Amino acid sequence: MTSAATTLKGQPLDRPALDSMLRRRMFYTPSFEIYGGVAGLYDYGPPGCSLQANIIDVWRKHFVLEEDMLEVDCSVLTPHDVLKTSGHVDKFADWMCKDPKNGEILRADHFVEEVLETRLKGDKEARGQKIEEKEEDPKKKKRKGKGAVEAVKLDDAVVQEYEEILAKIDNYNGQELGELIKKYDLKNAATGVQPSPPVAFNLMFQTAIGPSSNTPGYLRPETAQGQFLNFAKLLEYNQQQMPFASASIGRSYRNEISPRAGLLRVREFLMAEIEHFVDPQGGKKHPRFEEVKDVELVLLNRETQLSGKTHVEKVSIGKAVANGTVDNETLGYFLARIHLFLKKIGVDQSKIRFRQHMANEMAHYAADCWDAELFTSYGWVECVGCADRSAYDLSVHAAKTGAPLIVRERLPEPITIEEYQVELDKKKFGPHFKKDGKAVEAALLATTQCDREELSKTLESADSITVKVEGVGNGEVTVPKELITVAKRKRTENVREFTPNVIEPSFGIGRILYALMEHCYWSRASEGGDEARGVLSFPPTVSPTKVLIVPLSSNEEFRPFCRKLSQKLRKMGISSRIDDSSATIGKRYSRNDELGTPLGITIDFQTVKDQTITLRDRDSTKQVRADEDKIIEAIQAMVDGSKSWKDIEAELPVFSGQEVELPTRE
Amino acid sequence: MTSAATTLKGQPLDRPALDSMLRRRMFYTPSFEIYGGVAGLYDYGPPGCSLQANIIDVWRKHFVLEEDMLEVDCSVLTPHDVLKTSGHVDKFADWMCKDPKNGEILRADHFVEEVLETRLKGDKEARGQKIEEKEEDPKKKKRKGKGAVEAVKLDDAVVQEYEEILAKIDNYNGQELGELIKKYDLKNAATGVQPSPPVAFNLMFQTAIGPSSNTPGYLRPETAQGQFLNFAKLLEYNQQQMPFASASIGRSYRNEISPRAGLLRVREFLMAEIEHFVDPQGGKKHPRFEEVKDVELVLLNRETQLSGKTHVEKVSIGKAVANGTVDNETLGYFLARIHLFLKKIGVDQSKIRFRQHMANEMAHYAADCWDAELFTSYGWVECVGCADRSAYDLSVHAAKTGAPLIVRERLPEPITIEEYQVELDKKKFGPHFKKDGKAVEAALLATTQCDREELSKTLESADSITVKVEGVGNGEVTVPKELITVAKRKRTENVREFTPNVIEPSFGIGRILYALMEHCYWSRASEGGDEARGVLSFPPTVSPTKVLIVPLSSNEEFRPFCRKLSQKLRKMGISSRIDDSSATIGKRYSRNDELGTPLGITIDFQTVKDQTITLRDRDSTKQVRADEDKIIEAIQAMVDGSKSWKDIEAELPVFSGQEVELPTRE
Repeated sequence: MTSAATTLKGQPLDRPALDSMLRRRMFYTPSFEIYGGVAGLYDYGPPGCSLQANIIDVWRKHFVLEEDMLEVDCSVLTPHDVLKTSGHVDKFADWMCKDPKNGEILRADHFVEEVLETRLKGDKEARGQKIEEKEEDPKKKKRKGKGAVEAVKLDDAVVQEYEEILAKIDNYNGQELGELIKKYDLKNAATGVQPSPPVAFNLMFQTAIGPSSNTPGYLRPETAQGQFLNFAKLLEYNQQQMPFASASIGRSYRNEISPRAGLLRVREFLMAEIEHFVDPQGGKKHPRFEEVKDVELVLLNRETQLSGKTHVEKVSIGKAVANGTVDNETLGYFLARIHLFLKKIGVDQSKIRFRQHMANEMAHYAADCWDAELFTSYGWVECVGCADRSAYDLSVHAAKTGAPLIVRERLPEPITIEEYQVELDKKKFGPHFKKDGKAVEAALLATTQCDREELSKTLESADSITVKVEGVGNGEVTVPKELITVAKRKRTENVREFTPNVIEPSFGIGRILYALMEHCYWSRASEGGDEARGVLSFPPTVSPTKVLIVPLSSNEEFRPFCRKLSQKLRKMGISSRIDDSSATIGKRYSRNDELGTPLGITIDFQTVKDQTITLRDRDSTKQVRADEDKIIEAIQAMVDGSKSWKDIEAELPVFSGQEVELPTRE
Repeated sequence: MTSAATTLKGQPLDRPALDSMLRRRMFYTPSFEIYGGVAGLYDYGPPGCSLQANIIDVWRKHFVLEEDMLEVDCSVLTPHDVLKTSGHVDKFADWMCKDPKNGEILRADHFVEEVLETRLKGDKEARGQKIEEKEEDPKKKKRKGKGAVEAVKLDDAVVQEYEEILAKIDNYNGQELGELIKKYDLKNAATGVQPSPPVAFNLMFQTAIGPSSNTPGYLRPETAQGQFLNFAKLLEYNQQQMPFASASIGRSYRNEISPRAGLLRVREFLMAEIEHFVDPQGGKKHPRFEEVKDVELVLLNRETQLSGKTHVEKVSIGKAVANGTVDNETLGYFLARIHLFLKKIGVDQSKIRFRQHMANEMAHYAADCWDAELFTSYGWVECVGCADRSAYDLSVHAAKTGAPLIVRERLPEPITIEEYQVELDKKKFGPHFKKDGKAVEAALLATTQCDREELSKTLESADSITVKVEGVGNGEVTVPKELITVAKRKRTENVREFTPNVIEPSFGIGRILYALMEHCYWSRASEGGDEARGVLSFPPTVSPTKVLIVPLSSNEEFRPFCRKLSQKLRKMGISSRIDDSSATIGKRYSRNDELGTPLGITIDFQTVKDQTITLRDRDSTKQVRADEDKIIEAIQAMVDGSKSWKDIEAELPVFSGQEVELPTRE
């Protein structure tokens, strides 16, 4: 694997150049920029918005339609109680501290990490060692006020201490981070003072629902809770059939302490989440696992990570489940399906890996969890999580609300259970115990099968039994024989009840979109030694616009051809755009390469004569010429993925005429 | 127009029956229901979610693709300053008062209205008059604790006063509503006490962005602001060409005081908004107006409303613009396009009207505004607004931020302007006036062309001029001739600068969706006199699922046919659903009529023999039988709208076999 990010053509990735192109072409733009902007909030302009819609469209077809998932659209505003039960109110927090001098708010773990790393670099410099730039992690994007490296040699023991701290930086709680700050006298480089002790900062945006403050609420941090709360209705909708999955596409919110990694760390983002509900019995098999078992994945499991290795060979998901690397078929099925989805939208196959969560990264209830990570100029970025969350979510909401979030399954054969049962003679029992009746009854019904076997034996010979009842008399109550029967009886069960387990593939669409833009980017050298020109080689399926229509000049004769073509394409559901500006053909195509439009049509004087048009391929800049029908047919085949440019080039006459295009230097 | 809501077949609309069906089939469900729910928040289940996605899909094709609009996706979280400038912080509020006894919070205008209406009903009862139920207005949905009508006769003068108040209930401010409550001693029926004086309650949800409280923010109340703020970038993206439109589909939020009208008055909702930017000069013509000029609309203009009429004949939009009913072509173009969109998704043509805003309903800057209203069991409901907002939005944001939200248009011919100019000899001017220099200069430059003509004449003969400068000396300053020249000069302008006007069609998708469900609903009488069965006759384009596939029984032989069919349909992008439950064919079809699935395929023993299948039409319950390819072809034609069931029935052999269906009683 490359250790530095590269473009699609293997060139070193110039992130500032890409970023400036993406903003110039309005893929995205900081929200409220004319008001100074707000960190972590971005708008998508027309090409970004369309790219996002196309990714979502592929996602919906690949997952929801393909597997008949039940898509729901739930409220973002969520009342306190729901997120209290889910654990978000108590645990969805980062540690922050404040610089007492300039009031700057720092994320505590990032701050400790930054200062220690700066000191370690200073030490290396003092020792005359080469400083290797670590793969950057967007979670730990550096602040602007970051301290300059000073060449100060540290004791060997100190170096080791620092390195150990950095290795487990994610494991410290607030108090521990505070102790590290004190112990090593960590100072904010901007002011030269120690920040205040870390306090927990909940990452949910809070608001009040309704005019009174009786209903405090939050903006949801994920779409999952809405799906869990609707479980019983969804099961009913699915006519009680298991397994099934729900899915949801929608915005979620995290009030990041100080977001600084562009589109990768934002406060408002689009998620697409699946909750696949599965019977925990029977090994969580998946009926369609067979279809994906040969898909090969890079699986970085716990052991590999502990060994310090970051490179592993691909392995088929079939083998990985068979040898226990991946916990079960259903989880494995989704890892493979996630991989296929990423491949379909154009993610670079050599820049995907699946990383298993370490035990301490995972929630206590999770059975297993893998992240699909994509390699970018920020390092490996978690873009899809895929967790086996066991029965946790349904269980906690059921316990809190009393709603039966369970499956009742008719058993194929009724089963007979033989067990001791306690029967009370209610008519006599009540009058005998009066106010204590309920407590005594509860105590008797709470007895175990073992207890009951004992009681049954006692009653064979004795006139009464003694049972412990807290709070009644001296804590021991005597029950006369005539009030109670304890006997072995047979009971027939027709139904099995269980709480399903949940496999949760959770997609951060914005992160995938950003990684995709990096993966599809490359730059084409220009002829005259001008600046290199950017190209975004999106697959036609997700390209914001499929076809650019360019009249050779502003000659009025070309206009009806352009209009007719664009109408035809629109009718076929293929998005096109006419560029009849006065710029040169080359400039217009160049603008469109930056927008990632895969195909270009030129209308020229030949068109007016014989109705033929030329079709240009964005990636090779090669052209073919044919009549309109043939060209449209070719476009359709490329957009629906049934043909590639190579096929079209072989079928239609190559053209090298009106456009002066530049050779690709790779 | 009907005064009470009816079904598609003219039956009286039984809203509770419809509502119960919609919930049972999970079109929608109250959010967080197992936690007791939150008023005004709803989730869409699978059919509702799909219906919504299909409506959005049609919207995007009808507006965005058809007119090359620039779609953007902007942040919901919005900082305070933006909404302060737009006017929402100060004016986006309702008046609320509180019942001091039970703490109930009441929306003041609704409360006053409710009590007065109850008294008027009591008066009618006392007079022995029939009480007509007014068309209900969802804005004024009644509270549960509403007082019972008591037969108390009122003075004729009081009746008239009450009626006058009710007629202008929307025009009172908080103080005035408070005075009405006192004057007429209006009491909350639930407690028998007068509520507290009304206070303003801002309807935006507030939150804090980031860890400090430095950036207060709101959830946007509309998507429009994000579009306005990006105007300059969008114009650049559109290569400086005017006119153009941006569009945005996304959630917006309004913290309603006490929402009670189901899906019509919610706190979180999906909007689709267009901002069409147009040059205010030249009468706001629209290049495609010709295409829609014959579209006929019901236009309820101001005069008609003042005259008390609610019924008007349809008129073509061409005539309405020509005779000034609708202010300009661009506005008229969008009214027609809105109408065509509503028609396309299946809204009942007889239940659409366009109502012009009264002068006092409209913002002061708006040039004209029309609402598309749909008739439902709640009365006429505003579902789409279409306003000419003049240059207001761009102007206020430009004034606040200094950003140039303008169009610079190269003039076809440079124009020469001849005008009096004031020139000062700066070298002498400053030393002469010293500290007063700036004020004197400002006063001179503020002179009008008329003033300057005078000054120029004076300077021809006199040695100095006198000019009024507030705050300098006695308010009159003498300027010597050698410091100033006032002369007529020519100036050439190549560029014209202007702030575009905005035409804003704004769609409440949830309201449209609800009205559509009412419009498509009807009930089919059942054979045996059982309960009538509900049907949702959505057009195939928007139907949540297009095809139901039903195997006759659970016989294993049918399974491969079902699977193959559903795969074929999926590949064509046609959503289908297999129902292989053990219910009777009739029950399964009936379930699907309630879900609005237009077509049903049955796989039976004949299929196994000769590969033919039957296709059933939801609305007529008629069936045809043919081989798979022919049936699939028919399905595709009906889904893409090129054929109707009538066409299919004429082409393929009618079948009346395995299913016992019930005749339609209309």
